[in-house]
Amino acid sequence: MSNRITDALPVTDMELPADAHSHEHPENLPYVHKVGVPPKQNLFTEFKTTFKETFMHDDPLRSFKDQSNSKKLLLGLQAVFPILDWGRSYSLSKFRGDLIAGLTIASLCIPQDIGYSKLANLAPQYGLYSSFVPPLIYAAMGSSRDIAIGPVAVVSLLLGTLIQDEFDPVKQKLDYQRLAFTATFFAGLTQFALGFFRLGFLIDFLSHAAVVGFMGGTAITIALQQLKGLLGIKKFTKKTDIVSVMRSVWTSVHHGWNWETVVIGVAFLAFLLLAKYIGKKNKKLFWVSAIAPLISVIISTFFVYITHAEKKGVQIVNKIEKGINPSSVHEIFFTGENLGKGFRIGVVAGMIALTEAVAIARTFAAMKDYHIDGNREMVALGTMNVIGSMTSCYVATGSFSRSAVNYMAGCNTAVSNIVMSLVVLLTLEVITPLFKYTPNAILASIIISAVVGLIDINAMLLIWKIDKFDFIACMGAFFGVVFVSVEIGLLIAVAISFAKILLQVTRPRTAVLGKVPRTNVYRNIQQYPEAAKVPGILIVRVDSAIYFSNSNYIRERILRWLSDEEEQLKENGELKSKIHCLIVEMSPVTDIDTSGIHALEELHNSLRKKDIQLVLANPGPVVADKLHASDFTSLIGEDNIFLTVADAVITFAPKMEP
Amino acid sequence: MSNRITDALPVTDMELPADAHSHEHPENLPYVHKVGVPPKQNLFTEFKTTFKETFMHDDPLRSFKDQSNSKKLLLGLQAVFPILDWGRSYSLSKFRGDLIAGLTIASLCIPQDIGYSKLANLAPQYGLYSSFVPPLIYAAMGSSRDIAIGPVAVVSLLLGTLIQDEFDPVKQKLDYQRLAFTATFFAGLTQFALGFFRLGFLIDFLSHAAVVGFMGGTAITIALQQLKGLLGIKKFTKKTDIVSVMRSVWTSVHHGWNWETVVIGVAFLAFLLLAKYIGKKNKKLFWVSAIAPLISVIISTFFVYITHAEKKGVQIVNKIEKGINPSSVHEIFFTGENLGKGFRIGVVAGMIALTEAVAIARTFAAMKDYHIDGNREMVALGTMNVIGSMTSCYVATGSFSRSAVNYMAGCNTAVSNIVMSLVVLLTLEVITPLFKYTPNAILASIIISAVVGLIDINAMLLIWKIDKFDFIACMGAFFGVVFVSVEIGLLIAVAISFAKILLQVTRPRTAVLGKVPRTNVYRNIQQYPEAAKVPGILIVRVDSAIYFSNSNYIRERILRWLSDEEEQLKENGELKSKIHCLIVEMSPVTDIDTSGIHALEELHNSLRKKDIQLVLANPGPVVADKLHASDFTSLIGEDNIFLTVADAVITFAPKMEP
Repeated sequence: MSNRITDALPVTDMELPADAHSHEHPENLPYVHKVGVPPKQNLFTEFKTTFKETFMHDDPLRSFKDQSNSKKLLLGLQAVFPILDWGRSYSLSKFRGDLIAGLTIASLCIPQDIGYSKLANLAPQYGLYSSFVPPLIYAAMGSSRDIAIGPVAVVSLLLGTLIQDEFDPVKQKLDYQRLAFTATFFAGLTQFALGFFRLGFLIDFLSHAAVVGFMGGTAITIALQQLKGLLGIKKFTKKTDIVSVMRSVWTSVHHGWNWETVVIGVAFLAFLLLAKYIGKKNKKLFWVSAIAPLISVIISTFFVYITHAEKKGVQIVNKIEKGINPSSVHEIFFTGENLGKGFRIGVVAGMIALTEAVAIARTFAAMKDYHIDGNREMVALGTMNVIGSMTSCYVATGSFSRSAVNYMAGCNTAVSNIVMSLVVLLTLEVITPLFKYTPNAILASIIISAVVGLIDINAMLLIWKIDKFDFIACMGAFFGVVFVSVEIGLLIAVAISFAKILLQVTRPRTAVLGKVPRTNVYRNIQQYPEAAKVPGILIVRVDSAIYFSNSNYIRERILRWLSDEEEQLKENGELKSKIHCLIVEMSPVTDIDTSGIHALEELHNSLRKKDIQLVLANPGPVVADKLHASDFTSLIGEDNIFLTVADAVITFAPKMEP
Repeated sequence: MSNRITDALPVTDMELPADAHSHEHPENLPYVHKVGVPPKQNLFTEFKTTFKETFMHDDPLRSFKDQSNSKKLLLGLQAVFPILDWGRSYSLSKFRGDLIAGLTIASLCIPQDIGYSKLANLAPQYGLYSSFVPPLIYAAMGSSRDIAIGPVAVVSLLLGTLIQDEFDPVKQKLDYQRLAFTATFFAGLTQFALGFFRLGFLIDFLSHAAVVGFMGGTAITIALQQLKGLLGIKKFTKKTDIVSVMRSVWTSVHHGWNWETVVIGVAFLAFLLLAKYIGKKNKKLFWVSAIAPLISVIISTFFVYITHAEKKGVQIVNKIEKGINPSSVHEIFFTGENLGKGFRIGVVAGMIALTEAVAIARTFAAMKDYHIDGNREMVALGTMNVIGSMTSCYVATGSFSRSAVNYMAGCNTAVSNIVMSLVVLLTLEVITPLFKYTPNAILASIIISAVVGLIDINAMLLIWKIDKFDFIACMGAFFGVVFVSVEIGLLIAVAISFAKILLQVTRPRTAVLGKVPRTNVYRNIQQYPEAAKVPGILIVRVDSAIYFSNSNYIRERILRWLSDEEEQLKENGELKSKIHCLIVEMSPVTDIDTSGIHALEELHNSLRKKDIQLVLANPGPVVADKLHASDFTSLIGEDNIFLTVADAVITFAPKMEP
């Protein structure tokens, strides 16, 4: 039936580019393959497959198959508590690495914890509490071997700003603290639920670029907040945007800065940054940067103690509660309107904490080549925060800086977290009183030197080089955090990430194909300028599933390719080679819905009015199935669907054959 | 470099299926093509292209190019007022068709308008007003030749239920009415803005399936609402869900139904449905169904008038204001909290009205093969509703039923809308008093017979056949409207439509490819069971752009294909044919972002640890560009990227060659 059209049209050899058919493979012709339609699945199988690919794509129950019940129980326990698995093969040689790594991250985490709890507007001991219970639980349930668990800067700031909007951290101290535990509880619950219901893929919707921008912006914001401690300013804005903070800093320059504090702060900041630089330059000296904070704390505390600098206005930590975590079950708001507030804040903080932890776990797993089950990891993190919320901890997660130190110090398993946890326990029980004279300026400089690592300029440059749209998302999140607030930055990051997905789905790419000389393949003529169009035939590739969101666009775009082509032919005076056949390469069209089939029908109708035959090449299994189901196949004719573009071209340009 | 691996592995001819390489084209080898990297575009060009494809893909300014200024002005005027274009070639023969069509739709619209204004809880004349001004404006500005403009059932119901939540239509009549005009104003403004800023594609996010379900559900809801008029019930629920309505109907069965009304209503409903059936069976008799409503009105009005049935409890229209549209500019809420309410309702009603009008315009344009510019159409509809809101009209749009009649009656241009508008003008000026005795039951039966056409069972069946997920969206919207409310149904429709897009983006398909016998092409082995795997090589195709939302999934899925394959080989005891090369067919991968490149890097690292070479086949222009920009190309080696899968297979299974 297609011959009717092609025969009527004057396609002659003369108009062909010299090499367009010199290597045509005529042996393809006798073997023209039919497009396969896969065996029809029944409804249940279809749903099951979709469900499995969506939620269980990593087949988490695979190892349970064909096992005895007692074995299944053991496997189940091991799945929840991986420590039962790797613990059995734990050895002394592994412990050596874990011990050193654990001590190193403990020395780093103690001063950081005290600083981060200030970011969250909580008393300093809460940071230490959060480095005691959560790492122990994670060690039993988590599957990452390198992550270091504890409070982190970004989540502390986020929690601090969000809870501060509800309660004043000084005047309503108890309510503030209760809301913090409530938020922690719901953060844990969110994390647990995401993992348990295998919805972990939801965190993938925060794109890498958005995370880079958000982290960078938050780091700047956190560093700016530290100016309060570093400069010894007493009256400081509660806002986090750069304009408010810089105004606070300048207005207090004449009477608000404490010069003793500035000297101590800046000196130790310089020392810490130098140590960081040394650790970066020479990987073997990473421990210099790892223990520098603790050394700074010890030296500065001693210095303040003997000089009584606190009487000259140098602010000090003053008091850290001694003893291990008290219970906080009764402090969580389980009823009332504060429940809703805690839930909202908890969900946001929990998601951000997850994003950070999962990214770390995946990075190190890839470096050491072991497997991380994202969903199981979320269950572990969630359990850890739920229990944490009942033992006076606030949201803990994996820390970028400490995990890197952990890795470099040669940790082998989560035992390094246990070691760290025990050191923190010792600290809480014995030496917290010694921190009384630690100047706040030191904590500020430790935080600054920790967060500068979150500003990943190389990643930003790479994003700029690779994808401009990603870069917009990155910068949107960055400037949103720096100039407005953490929440707005986050909102911008999520919105731009979604906009990108929608744009991809609404405006898929299409391309005109040509024949690559001396081969049988047809490729985008913009990518392969040597590829030659076939006279009388327009070949268009659609690069996406055809769905309601793009079906109209695709139809219109294909027709525009056609009219562009016809216009060009007219301009060149090549009236004889009028287009008589439009081949749509369907290889990338992974799916089609009713709107998509409508669009194809309309395309077919529009083309028929112009005496142009619509031909499809290589529809995939799902598409082929649906084209049959909707009778579109019989509308355009079964023999107008080909296995490859080459087959279709041979059929519709028969005079090309020598 | 790749040879190092392949040479070390025992890939022998023996393990090959007999026909796997019998038609290999050795001449491909000397001509192995390099993958093309398109010339680097500068940033501005890149942004311009993306912007153009997103917002200007139909190149609306094309005709303005290379024209003189006066010509540009004329073209601009013609673009805004297409009547200046087609009006110049308007002829008497065209007018004949338009006149007949215009009279036919006028006879249909007058009784419908009166009924629909009741659905919107407005006085009957407002329906007629809305069929006078808007069609005139549309005729000047619209580009569809077949659409019939006026109030429609779905939008009337939507407006009625939404405004009713704010004001009582009886007790707060004036406020209700003012909010209706405010909503109409903002509906128009929304439509205008969407078109003007070329954001028309946003309405494509309401999928065809969702619209079918929503329309069907709304039709049922509207029909149920008519039971009030049809059965002469005085106390009737204000809710629209089927449970509340049926309870209202049953509780009033003994004392609330008016039997005279029921007789009149049911008799004429039967007549109308019969007329509709005749019109459907015999396309030439379509006019029977078109004029049946007017005939029903005339006969029943006359009947009530002579029998004084209104004294026996048959409810009648009673009063329609005489005269043309009064101004309503001063009634629109431009300030205060009602502004916000009007805005919210207007945006929703405007979007739904747009969806209906654009779908109609596109359908008929495809049938008569002329072009509709969706965005320009929205500007026309928006202007029409903004002006309408100032002239006592409520939201007007294209009506499914009247547009079909218009088309079948042989309309040629929008002049048929002008004719209809003039007939409505005449009605308003002269004969409205005659409608005084028209029984409400007739209006109810006219509405029922009009909306049954909106329940498209065939479309639902087709959706079921083609795509089960679409069917869920369709039924979700349908039952949401029927059992809860119009808003909830709409929300469900939008939510499921979005979920589908997100699912597609998060869980793209992947497939293992095999060689189709006697060809050089590699296809999904599930679709083509005869396709044979190449020993030692696993070929995987990824069917989507690789973005942050799916990059982890894709990496893990590819690794699972690999471990599945390895497991199977182990089971079969084919240890010799260990996989040594993984080819990723990139043809359908239209784009990649930084997360995607990270995933590929991690995949490469995981594979390298297993001594498996990662090979890419046919990356598209954008992907090739980004792979270069990120230095991924040099990571895996430039010579491990091939033009086709076949080329890659030849290189990595060299012993296959005879």
